[in-house]
Amino acid sequence: VNPKAEQAEGFPGIRAAADIRALEGGADLAVVALPAPYVEEALRGCAEAGVPVAVVISSGFREAGNAEGERRLAAMARGRGPRIIGPNCAGVMSTGSRLFASIEVRALPGRTAFITQSGAVGGAVLALAGQRGIGFSKFVSYGNRADLGELELIEYLAADEETAVIALYLESITRGAELLEVIAACSRRKPFLVIKAGRTSSGSRAAGSHTGCLAGSEEVCEAALRRCGAIRAAGIEELLDLCDGFASLPPLRGGRIAIVTNSGGPGILAADRAEELGLSVAEPGPTTRRELQGFLSGRCALGNPIDLTVEGTGANYERTLRAMLASDCDGAIAINVATPFLDSVALARGVAAAAAHRSPPPSWPGRWWRRACGC
Amino acid sequence: VNPKAEQAEGFPGIRAAADIRALEGGADLAVVALPAPYVEEALRGCAEAGVPVAVVISSGFREAGNAEGERRLAAMARGRGPRIIGPNCAGVMSTGSRLFASIEVRALPGRTAFITQSGAVGGAVLALAGQRGIGFSKFVSYGNRADLGELELIEYLAADEETAVIALYLESITRGAELLEVIAACSRRKPFLVIKAGRTSSGSRAAGSHTGCLAGSEEVCEAALRRCGAIRAAGIEELLDLCDGFASLPPLRGGRIAIVTNSGGPGILAADRAEELGLSVAEPGPTTRRELQGFLSGRCALGNPIDLTVEGTGANYERTLRAMLASDCDGAIAINVATPFLDSVALARGVAAAAAHRSPPPSWPGRWWRRACGC
Repeated sequence: VNPKAEQAEGFPGIRAAADIRALEGGADLAVVALPAPYVEEALRGCAEAGVPVAVVISSGFREAGNAEGERRLAAMARGRGPRIIGPNCAGVMSTGSRLFASIEVRALPGRTAFITQSGAVGGAVLALAGQRGIGFSKFVSYGNRADLGELELIEYLAADEETAVIALYLESITRGAELLEVIAACSRRKPFLVIKAGRTSSGSRAAGSHTGCLAGSEEVCEAALRRCGAIRAAGIEELLDLCDGFASLPPLRGGRIAIVTNSGGPGILAADRAEELGLSVAEPGPTTRRELQGFLSGRCALGNPIDLTVEGTGANYERTLRAMLASDCDGAIAINVATPFLDSVALARGVAAAAAHRSPPPSWPGRWWRRACGC
Repeated sequence: VNPKAEQAEGFPGIRAAADIRALEGGADLAVVALPAPYVEEALRGCAEAGVPVAVVISSGFREAGNAEGERRLAAMARGRGPRIIGPNCAGVMSTGSRLFASIEVRALPGRTAFITQSGAVGGAVLALAGQRGIGFSKFVSYGNRADLGELELIEYLAADEETAVIALYLESITRGAELLEVIAACSRRKPFLVIKAGRTSSGSRAAGSHTGCLAGSEEVCEAALRRCGAIRAAGIEELLDLCDGFASLPPLRGGRIAIVTNSGGPGILAADRAEELGLSVAEPGPTTRRELQGFLSGRCALGNPIDLTVEGTGANYERTLRAMLASDCDGAIAINVATPFLDSVALARGVAAAAAHRSPPPSWPGRWWRRACGC
């Protein structure tokens, strides 16, 4: 919609409408990317055209001292509509329906929904996720949160079948009690991850000037989020690691882990980390040990980690993993330190064959993921 | 040297010698990559040929239950020589002299020396460092440590002019008191980083079977390393981050940090992390604030972090960083969240221009790096 253009820029063959009220067939969603002074009039047009939701990318509201302008948008949303995401946001994506109404790079399809108060953090997460091949079901940057915010989004995503994991980047909390209720309800159904920024005095001061809200007391916030079953990530990398794991892996039935490796050092590091997280890295029992001795060379360490050494083959990975998972363990970590003289693909095939023998449990029990995060 | 070959394999035009004693001009270093039963005889040849040091890649010694074979190698090293690195190691590199006597991928040149008890961890570090463009002065995988170990290597590297930072991956400690002395002396001169694996009971048990030594008590080890000025890294990624920082950046004179960003959220995350590490992210004083107001738009947040917003230019980065560093701050973090519609190179030029105005301090004061690591 552009009163000054005949053609929609970047969409050859699509004619621009002069006014949203003239748009044939109406619209399900409006994306408003106009200078701040024109936003209100555009939203009035949306209301009259019956558009239910508008994503307002435009900045120049509360974050720039224009609290009155933002108040007027909020009042419209409470009145004749449309409901508003933003202003001062980076837009929304729904990969399942190929909707990319955002100024950020397109997300790959995936099972994690990411909602963020900061558009730039959203962009950084999407960029890093793209490099690592991690995808998203939904992406919502909601900026100043004049109307719809994390509360409504979490409630929606908790019931969204395309979303297995929900991740939130949050700077400031306004409706605290309601938020905790919504998170508690959500975390009974799906892993709920959060980065809470503004944890320190300088971070909190900066959060105040960023989206015009005050960050809360760190201790209270930390304790409350934990009680609601939220899993806190320290930063973007950890958040993506957790999303990737939760979206890809079936839940653990218990905490007993087998570590199968072809090199000692990385196996030890994995054992250290697993034990620090409260998992059990127990040695195989006598029956399993005898079974392993039946096909592994005497050079292999048969404790746990089980070190197949550099001579480990795909078949050895498969048989070892199957033996451990059949008897002593609830889950396994397979490590391959890829060196130029090894056929890593053959080893990966062995690991995949072992995994194919495990069927995921019939349903995901409540909060199964909390043990894996040490919380 | 190969009694069965005329040509050195992989080195066209280089003739193979049948025996090291027949090698014209002798050798400064021998790399022994023979099956275990032939290693002793090869080392005897090295001794007679006057080769001072041998790197023994071969496995099949203490880690495989052959303690007697390893004892004999150690006895040779204590006797007529040569001194031994290994056995059961991945070799050595010295990028400055283009020496790559290792089975791992070649390291890029750099200022960090990395020494590792585990060859596979060494390989993983080199691979990740290569992806990130992080280089090394020296790389030593010393495996079973029959003769030369971390003690001798740290002592050497502390005095090595090509090495600004030393990083160690360690599974087990044998000569504890001496090691702590050497680390304490080293850390007065250069940042000394360590990953100590085998911290937990299962990790420690695995370390025992990996290189045939017992890992020590975690609490004692942690406290002792800290007292000696060693900086512990939790894993490979953190180790590389620290190496990269210490090798690239001049030391801080004090702990006051400016954060200059073009997007709020990442600035808040940086402020949180800086404050958690004990750094001060103080707001600019009135004089600096007036100076900043002279050239920054009213939309910029002038606290600390200073948010230049998406409109931040290279010139604004330069002037803001220079103003902060000239008055209130000892160091600065510049953040650019690269979006497709920004010219990130222009912004980087502004940051580089500001950095060029800072001369590094005349000398690096003792243990300046400890504050930056929160230790």
